[in-house]
Amino acid sequence: MDVKTAFGSVLREIRTHRNFSQEQMSLECDLDRTYISLLERGKRQPTLTTLFRLATVLNVSAAEMIDETQKRLQD
Amino acid sequence: MDVKTAFGSVLREIRTHRNFSQEQMSLECDLDRTYISLLERGKRQPTLTTLFRLATVLNVSAAEMIDETQKRLQD
Repeated sequence: MDVKTAFGSVLREIRTHRNFSQEQMSLECDLDRTYISLLERGKRQPTLTTLFRLATVLNVSAAEMIDETQKRLQD
Repeated sequence: MDVKTAFGSVLREIRTHRNFSQEQMSLECDLDRTYISLLERGKRQPTLTTLFRLATVLNVSAAEMIDETQKRLQD
């Protein structure tokens, strides 16, 4: 699994746990819904600034998202 | 302090603690030395893939680098 795919799966998991739709995420983060979808499918990777914005909206720390991404990379 | 500046200061600090020059970092990471310099000065921000590559070469976890970045943002 590559970094983008691992991160995308973490993002999707946390978002659905929060009962956020991609639409809500895109509004809260001021990002395009299509971009959220591309991130979750591992077709794009966020910049650090976007990572922090996503984490804030999801109410997790950016470090936790990266830690979980790293764990999935090692699987 | 913004995300880029905070991350750049973390990168520079860990690199110098490791006694790596920017030149060595750029060779080990297969990134341009100028790009390392831009990252450290907060003029660029890394993609997630680059973050993981930098962390591997510096022998720290990517999550630790993000955690430290987050702490500096809150200062």
